[in-house]
Amino acid sequence: MVHATSLPRNEAGIKAVIGVLKQLFGDRLQTGASIREQHGHTTTWIENQMPDAVVFPADTNEVSQIVKACAEYAVPIIPFGTGTSLEGHVNAPAGGISVDTSQMNKILAVHAEDLDVVVQPGVTREQLNTFLRDQGLFFPIDPGANASLGGMTATRASGTNAVRYGTMKDNVLALEVVMADGTVIRTAQRAKKSSAGYDMTRLMVGSEGTLGLITEITLKLQGIPEAISSARCSFRSIDDACRAVMMTIQYGIPVARIELLDEMSVKAANAYSKLSLPETPLLLLEFHGSEAGVAEQAETFSSIAEEFDGFDVTTTSSTEERNKLWQARHDMYWAGLQIRPGAKGISTDVCVPISRLAECVVAAQDKAIDMGLIAPIVGHVGDGNFHCLLLIDMENAEERARADGFVAWLNQMAISMDGTCTGEHGIGQGKRAYLKAELGETTRYMAAIKVALDPENILNPGKILID
Amino acid sequence: MVHATSLPRNEAGIKAVIGVLKQLFGDRLQTGASIREQHGHTTTWIENQMPDAVVFPADTNEVSQIVKACAEYAVPIIPFGTGTSLEGHVNAPAGGISVDTSQMNKILAVHAEDLDVVVQPGVTREQLNTFLRDQGLFFPIDPGANASLGGMTATRASGTNAVRYGTMKDNVLALEVVMADGTVIRTAQRAKKSSAGYDMTRLMVGSEGTLGLITEITLKLQGIPEAISSARCSFRSIDDACRAVMMTIQYGIPVARIELLDEMSVKAANAYSKLSLPETPLLLLEFHGSEAGVAEQAETFSSIAEEFDGFDVTTTSSTEERNKLWQARHDMYWAGLQIRPGAKGISTDVCVPISRLAECVVAAQDKAIDMGLIAPIVGHVGDGNFHCLLLIDMENAEERARADGFVAWLNQMAISMDGTCTGEHGIGQGKRAYLKAELGETTRYMAAIKVALDPENILNPGKILID
Repeated sequence: MVHATSLPRNEAGIKAVIGVLKQLFGDRLQTGASIREQHGHTTTWIENQMPDAVVFPADTNEVSQIVKACAEYAVPIIPFGTGTSLEGHVNAPAGGISVDTSQMNKILAVHAEDLDVVVQPGVTREQLNTFLRDQGLFFPIDPGANASLGGMTATRASGTNAVRYGTMKDNVLALEVVMADGTVIRTAQRAKKSSAGYDMTRLMVGSEGTLGLITEITLKLQGIPEAISSARCSFRSIDDACRAVMMTIQYGIPVARIELLDEMSVKAANAYSKLSLPETPLLLLEFHGSEAGVAEQAETFSSIAEEFDGFDVTTTSSTEERNKLWQARHDMYWAGLQIRPGAKGISTDVCVPISRLAECVVAAQDKAIDMGLIAPIVGHVGDGNFHCLLLIDMENAEERARADGFVAWLNQMAISMDGTCTGEHGIGQGKRAYLKAELGETTRYMAAIKVALDPENILNPGKILID
Repeated sequence: MVHATSLPRNEAGIKAVIGVLKQLFGDRLQTGASIREQHGHTTTWIENQMPDAVVFPADTNEVSQIVKACAEYAVPIIPFGTGTSLEGHVNAPAGGISVDTSQMNKILAVHAEDLDVVVQPGVTREQLNTFLRDQGLFFPIDPGANASLGGMTATRASGTNAVRYGTMKDNVLALEVVMADGTVIRTAQRAKKSSAGYDMTRLMVGSEGTLGLITEITLKLQGIPEAISSARCSFRSIDDACRAVMMTIQYGIPVARIELLDEMSVKAANAYSKLSLPETPLLLLEFHGSEAGVAEQAETFSSIAEEFDGFDVTTTSSTEERNKLWQARHDMYWAGLQIRPGAKGISTDVCVPISRLAECVVAAQDKAIDMGLIAPIVGHVGDGNFHCLLLIDMENAEERARADGFVAWLNQMAISMDGTCTGEHGIGQGKRAYLKAELGETTRYMAAIKVALDPENILNPGKILID
C-alpha cells in the first residue's frame, strides 16, 4: 500500500458523536472492524484509513441530523456511495463517520416530458437505467463501474459516453445538499437553463463531499435512440488512430463512444474475452441516432479511417455483436490483470487536448518500458482522456516507488501539454500534489471557498486540497 | 426610470484611485460625463448610476494593476463589455471605476485540431465568427446582441442556439481571471474535460463580475455544419406549438434552434419585416447536420407538427430565405416597439420546465391583458425559456408600477413551476429579490463565497446578492 498521511484525530468528539448517533440510528450505526475497513476501502493502492463508524441514513433529514451532530463535536464526515472511487476519496485520515447512502436509493420522480429524473444519491447507474428502460429513456453517463449517482456527481464522473453526452457536470440539473452546518439547500430549480446567481450546482459537482453532502439529484435524461450501431477499426500506429479520432470529431460526427485500446490492451482483450482482433492499436465506436443517421455516421467514419490506413473495419447493428465488443472493453481491467497474474492493477487517468493525445500516449508507453513497468492503455479518446493500468507487485517496495514515479511523470507530462492530472477520476488523496502543480495559486481560492462553506473542516477532510 | 438603490460612496478612495490610474493610463482613463453615463447605460428601465471614471486596459497585467489600485483604496470596479446586459449589471451604485474591455479584443490562439479558441474578453461574438469563417469553424452561442465574449461569459448568456449547443457554461473551457487582490489565476487547463478540484470555471461563468475580472477565455468551437436548413410552422394555439416542441425534443431531433413567436409577435414581425405569416403562434426552426441529416430532421419535425394541427409548414435550404426568417426573429425587439410607437421595450425573461411552458406563456398573456399591458412574447422554447417585451410609457408612473407588478408576478409564477427567474439575462440589480425568492437560503452560501473571494466587496457591488 502507498502511505496516506493521517490527520489529527478528535478522540473525544468522535466518541461523543458515536454515542449521539447510536441513540438516533440504533443498528443503522455500525462500528465493527470489517464494515469500517470496507468503507475505507478504495480500488487503489492508497492505504486503508478506516472511519470510526458507518451510518446508514434513509433520507435527507437524517443526513442533516448526522451533519448537525458531527458539526457540534467537530467530527469528520466522509460520504460513501459504492466505494468504486480510485484516489482514496472514501478514506478517513482523521477518522470520523462514514455516511453510507446505500439506503437512500429511491427514484423520487420521473418527468418524462421534461427528460429529467429526481433520485436519491444511493441510486446506482444500472438501477436507474433498468427502471427507465420501459419509458424509452436512459441516463447516458457510464464510468464502467455500477457507481452510485451521488458518488458520480461528487467526483464529476464521465466515461465512454462523454464524447457525446458530456460529463456529470453537463447532466446534473439541480442538487439538494446538506451543508456543513446541517442546513438543507437546493442549488437550482428544474428549468433546463438558468442565469440565476452563482452556479452552486457545478460547484458541488466534483467537490468530492468536501463542500456538502448530496441528498437529492435532478438529472437530465435522453430518449433511447431509434438505432444504435457500432464499429471497430485497427490501425498501424497510435498516431494514425488518434488522427482518425481528431478528424471524426472535427467532422462533427456525433459519435456516442470512441475508445482506443493500445496494442497491449488488444492482446489482453483477445486472451481474456476470446477475441481475435488484430494486435495493433484499435478504435471501438458506437453511433446513436436514426437508422439512416447511424448508417451515415458509420460510413463517414469508415472513409476517415481509410485515410489513416485503418484496416479490418467492421460495423455492425447486431446488438449481440455490439455487446460482445463493449463487454470486452468493460472487462479491460480484468483482462489487464491477466497479463501479470497476482499483480495489482492501478488505474491512473490524465486528459490532454486531443492534438497532443498521440504524443502523450506514445510517450507514456515508452516511459513505462524505460521504467520496466507494464501498463496497458485504454482511452476515451474523443475527449483526449486515457488510462494507464499499472500492473504492480505490491510486495515490491522498489517497484511501487517506480510506479509512483511513473504516475508523477505522466501527470507532469499531461499538465505540460495544457492537459489535466485527472479527466474523470478526481483528486481525492492521491492527486492533491498534482492539482497544485496544475492550477497553482488557483488552489488558494479553492481553499478560501472550502473555509467559507466548511469553516471547521469536517466535510471529507484531507481530500482535494493540501491542508 | 425605475429607482435603483445607491450604496455608500468612498469619496476619498475614489479620488485617490483616479489619481493613481491617471498616472498609469493617461488618456485611457476618462472622467467625462457622457462617457461615464454611457458606461452606466443599460438597455433596461433601471436608472443610470454612472461610474466615476472609465479605464481602457489593453492586457491582463493592466487589469491587475487597476484591481490592485482599487483594492488598496477599497474602490468598486465594474467590468464593462458592450453594455448590452439587461438587468443593470454595469451600473455603479457606489460609484467607482468602470473597466471597459473594448481594447482587449485580440483573438490570441485558434486550435483548430482541438476545436477551441483563446480570446480576450472584449472580442465580440460577430468578430470571432467572422475571423473563424475561413477555417470552417464557428462559435454557436448567439444571444442576439453583438455582445462581448467576456460579458457573455460573465452573465452565462445563451440564446437561440442553446437548445443544441448549450449555454456559455457548456462552452467555456477555461478562464484567466484577475481576483479581488489583483492575483491572476487560470481556472483550468485546455483539456476537454477535467475532474481536477472545484469547478472554478463554472463558478466564474455567470458571476457577473462579482468574483473576479475575466481577462482571457478559452471557448469550445464547432465545425460549420455541412448543411443548414430551416423550417416554420404555424399553430392554432400556444399549447399545440409547445406540445410539438416537447415531442421534437423527446424524439431526440437535434434541432439547432426552435423559437416560438406568439400571435402578437407574429403580427409585429409581419408589419416590421414585411412578411405575411399566418397571425397565430409560430415556430421557427433551424437544423444543422449532413445533407441527409437535415432533410430527415425536417421531415420528422413536419410529421410531429401535423399531429398537433400545425399548418403552413415551410422548410427551406435556401440561405436567403433562411436569413430573411431569422433576421425577422432577431429584429423582434424593433418590431415589438412598432406596436406602440414611443414606448420603451423592457425585455424580461424566465425559464420553466418544458412541460409547464404552454401554461406559463398563456398565463403571462392573460395576465398582461388583465393588467392592461402590451407584452408580445418570443421564446427559446426548446429550453423552456421565453421573453416578454413589455411596451411601457416610461413617463407614466402608474403604468411603470403595473409593469413592475407584472414582472414580479411572472417571476413568482415561473418559480412556482420549478422554473427560474432568469434563463439567460442574469440577476444584476433587477432580479436580486427574485433570486432570493427562488433559492432562499442558498443565497446565504453564495454570499459566503462572495465574502471569501472579495472580502472588501469591491467587485461589482450591489449585483446578484442583496447586501
